[in-house]
Amino acid sequence: MFDRIDHVGIAVEAIDPALALYEASFEMKLVHRETVEEQGVEAVLLDLGENHIELLQPLDAESPVGRFLARNGPGMHHIAYQVSDIESELERLRAAGIELIDQQPRIGIRGSRVAFAHPKYTGGVLTELVQPAEDH
Amino acid sequence: MFDRIDHVGIAVEAIDPALALYEASFEMKLVHRETVEEQGVEAVLLDLGENHIELLQPLDAESPVGRFLARNGPGMHHIAYQVSDIESELERLRAAGIELIDQQPRIGIRGSRVAFAHPKYTGGVLTELVQPAEDH
Repeated sequence: MFDRIDHVGIAVEAIDPALALYEASFEMKLVHRETVEEQGVEAVLLDLGENHIELLQPLDAESPVGRFLARNGPGMHHIAYQVSDIESELERLRAAGIELIDQQPRIGIRGSRVAFAHPKYTGGVLTELVQPAEDH
Repeated sequence: MFDRIDHVGIAVEAIDPALALYEASFEMKLVHRETVEEQGVEAVLLDLGENHIELLQPLDAESPVGRFLARNGPGMHHIAYQVSDIESELERLRAAGIELIDQQPRIGIRGSRVAFAHPKYTGGVLTELVQPAEDH
């Protein structure tokens, strides 16, 4: 089972002006900033209770988030559910007929283990599973 | 301040097949179903820890969610933050220069009090504040 919403990933043109909204106006606490080369993004995490908001700025126009922005403009990019045993959750989804983008978990932001399901199998919603690192 | 993500609203063509994903495969608990005439939707809430997923099926093609589906296809429609004093939060957002769609809270799903901010002021993300009814 999924424990909670881990985060909603939001595509932005530039992180710093977006922080004026999420950190200053929405009063969420900025807790992490990282360049995730493999995903082609600069990303920040903001705390919101046990949930997070993840802001994603593409490193270049040809990255997945760069292409998303060109097609849709800024906005919600994906939803991530927090799990405590990502391998068994992925196995369960596969058995339910949901095609996965990542067959095996890979390292995501802040040392988490993550995997994405294919949005064609999740009602058009890009869906991620996240097992946080033990210290988060 | 915002307490947590209350829910992510997801636009679907039809709720029942979407429940095969969210209730059966994702194992979220269906806790509420309601026709919200004012918003032109049939909606369900599924529990996920202290968060929810809200599935939205338009009552007709000319409703806001109907137009969203025609433009974008099914997918994430809005994010809602849970607050405990919606009037003061709306006042705070107004003071921060964020234009509101709803100047005053109105009744939302399951007796909650809700208000939307204008996505032009929230980075393209349709953003809702929700103060749950006292028994939820």
